[in-house]
Amino acid sequence: MPDQILDADSSDPVLMGWMEGLPPPPERRIRWADAGHMRFPMHRHAYSRMREFLPTTRVGRGATLWDLPVALRDDLDAVAFQALDDGRSLTWAEAQKANFTDAILVLHRGAIVYERYRGATRPDTPHIAFSVTKSFVGTLAEMLVAEGRLDPAAPVADLIPELAASGFGDATLRQVMDMTTALDFSEEYTDPTSGIGAMSNALGLTPRPPGYAGPDDVFEFLPTVRKNGEHGARFTYRTCNTEVLGWIVARTEGEQLDRVLSRRIWQPLGMEQDADFLIDTSGMPFAGGGLNPVLRDMARFGEAMRLGGTLPGGSQAIHAAAIGSILPGGSREAFAPAGYRWIPGGSYRSQWWFVGGNHGAYSARGIHGQAIYVDPVAEMVIARFGSHPVAANSALDPTSLPAYKAVADHLISHG
Amino acid sequence: MPDQILDADSSDPVLMGWMEGLPPPPERRIRWADAGHMRFPMHRHAYSRMREFLPTTRVGRGATLWDLPVALRDDLDAVAFQALDDGRSLTWAEAQKANFTDAILVLHRGAIVYERYRGATRPDTPHIAFSVTKSFVGTLAEMLVAEGRLDPAAPVADLIPELAASGFGDATLRQVMDMTTALDFSEEYTDPTSGIGAMSNALGLTPRPPGYAGPDDVFEFLPTVRKNGEHGARFTYRTCNTEVLGWIVARTEGEQLDRVLSRRIWQPLGMEQDADFLIDTSGMPFAGGGLNPVLRDMARFGEAMRLGGTLPGGSQAIHAAAIGSILPGGSREAFAPAGYRWIPGGSYRSQWWFVGGNHGAYSARGIHGQAIYVDPVAEMVIARFGSHPVAANSALDPTSLPAYKAVADHLISHG
Repeated sequence: MPDQILDADSSDPVLMGWMEGLPPPPERRIRWADAGHMRFPMHRHAYSRMREFLPTTRVGRGATLWDLPVALRDDLDAVAFQALDDGRSLTWAEAQKANFTDAILVLHRGAIVYERYRGATRPDTPHIAFSVTKSFVGTLAEMLVAEGRLDPAAPVADLIPELAASGFGDATLRQVMDMTTALDFSEEYTDPTSGIGAMSNALGLTPRPPGYAGPDDVFEFLPTVRKNGEHGARFTYRTCNTEVLGWIVARTEGEQLDRVLSRRIWQPLGMEQDADFLIDTSGMPFAGGGLNPVLRDMARFGEAMRLGGTLPGGSQAIHAAAIGSILPGGSREAFAPAGYRWIPGGSYRSQWWFVGGNHGAYSARGIHGQAIYVDPVAEMVIARFGSHPVAANSALDPTSLPAYKAVADHLISHG
Repeated sequence: MPDQILDADSSDPVLMGWMEGLPPPPERRIRWADAGHMRFPMHRHAYSRMREFLPTTRVGRGATLWDLPVALRDDLDAVAFQALDDGRSLTWAEAQKANFTDAILVLHRGAIVYERYRGATRPDTPHIAFSVTKSFVGTLAEMLVAEGRLDPAAPVADLIPELAASGFGDATLRQVMDMTTALDFSEEYTDPTSGIGAMSNALGLTPRPPGYAGPDDVFEFLPTVRKNGEHGARFTYRTCNTEVLGWIVARTEGEQLDRVLSRRIWQPLGMEQDADFLIDTSGMPFAGGGLNPVLRDMARFGEAMRLGGTLPGGSQAIHAAAIGSILPGGSREAFAPAGYRWIPGGSYRSQWWFVGGNHGAYSARGIHGQAIYVDPVAEMVIARFGSHPVAANSALDPTSLPAYKAVADHLISHG
């Protein structure tokens, strides 16, 4: 954790007045050229307004709305649990401050029972979902598998010939989906020379250093990724896998990824707002982390998963076999060596995290605290946006995962 | 007119396949860094996807939709008229190709009687409206005048002290609204050293030349504009006036312009889609030309004007006195010296064009063929998006203005 003297209240972006003023004074400006949109505490503002800093495309909603019933209850804020790291006791309300939650929503049996927006967030304001994006892309891939249009055993070289000579070439689609590829690509968010740092430059997400002569878009970047070891042995979280997966989905559909996402998920699920999707200069959406939906639309996706793809009105929005392929979760043996201390017994499959425990809970997870969390036993879905100072979720899992579990248990016992 | 061998059909952006492919091949790429988004024929694609090239903010729709009835009729395509320049006879359908119309809609007595989308346009896809944006901003200013919150006689120096020493300082708000200011600012779209070219660089709409050390946003640019003559004498179309007007509106409301536009027009008018608004690095929307709405929402604005601000359901969405101040039009004497050959007897008031003739028709007009056209006598509103190779509307007025008039006359005689 970097030096950080600001807590959630003192770093509230509205209090800090980011970009307020005509013009905003220099000390309140956030500039893409300084990567200010990605730095705490400025990012607490920028994560709700990424389209103001970067080119985006629109993931269009459809004509029909999935109307979520609202049945708010006031007993959740007091639900208590023990933090995983130091065992201190926290309530649900306290945890939200402790882990810099921007907005959070709980669905129970399909109804909104809890909903909070803080700082720059609003019900109709998109927020970057970071790697929650991956779970949308993974689900799209499973839909194509369920339709027989993609073979999980196919090598990437067959699906994307441009990647034949790269480290991805002899990996199977299933290995890419489950991130069991072995690649020379580091996911170290604090190191600008890491794989994720280089990819961020290639995609234009962060300003390029002077004289930059590296890849100009994701299609130039991915072929540069080399193999490092044997595919299939173990899970290692690397965002570049999802860029490959997005490429495969778009090529299979013959349509750019944002349009596939609109047609196959945003419209059928009756999302209430368009989503923004960060794109590179080629127009390719950032499949591994560029989606900006509103909170309720994140919740709708989780609820559609929980319902096996069939919405309350009876329409089959997501192929049941696609969800059926995801839900057993992945290999625990492949996951264990990755050393996620706060996810014992976990696994990863098709871009979804299975968090262990006896509820079969699974989650879409993005840096700085973005999450969709589905607890099938508690019939509960949580959607959350965050702007934690630290990117890695290991910094906030200790006050998040047990909180979700405690709320789930509370809903079961106080149904 | 520059060398141009492509007509509307052969320059169709879908036919040309701009940005298609994973990745798009070099010959199909459009790059902001090359200003490709502003050059024919690439702009025929880019004008429907400006947010993919530039930072934008969201002008949010509200919860209630103004449902436009649809009563399509098939007799308009054959309506004939004579072009103003060479007198040749054209039909309504032929005119749309002749002047590179992307999408066009006709409302008659509040119902959609004609609606066409070509090329990259769709009913739910925003398109840049260019200077049609000005009429939204001018109407917002008139709303504040009607509420007694702005005095049209106030000098700009009193409203925006930062501009006291600029050429705007001793101009009145009314002179800014009606563009009768006298300024050293050329609106020559084909000259990169013109005032509009320099402003475009400052706002980041086009790539800056190497070593650029000029203004970094609109707030740095506007104070550099010098006076040239005496304010109030005659109309001269200069976009920088609208940037000042947007600043005044935002400062008066204490809220950024996009949020004012959402709260005061987008939500009350029941717009069906969010609009995109191009912004500079300060977050200030490009008041003179940066709005990207969908076509039907442009039509709604025209229809609200025609109805005096009261929507069919009875709600007073726009202050009647604001529209009352606009509708007499401006001074013909001030307008005539500007030499708009195709608009004899015209005038300009509050960022709206009054096109002359006996119907009292008025229009919001943007380069390359963007328009809202209101004919009160024919109870008709036309909304149009275009991507004409030439920016100046003088290139397309000869096949547009008489076409609007012919359709109006047809609707009157064939009710």
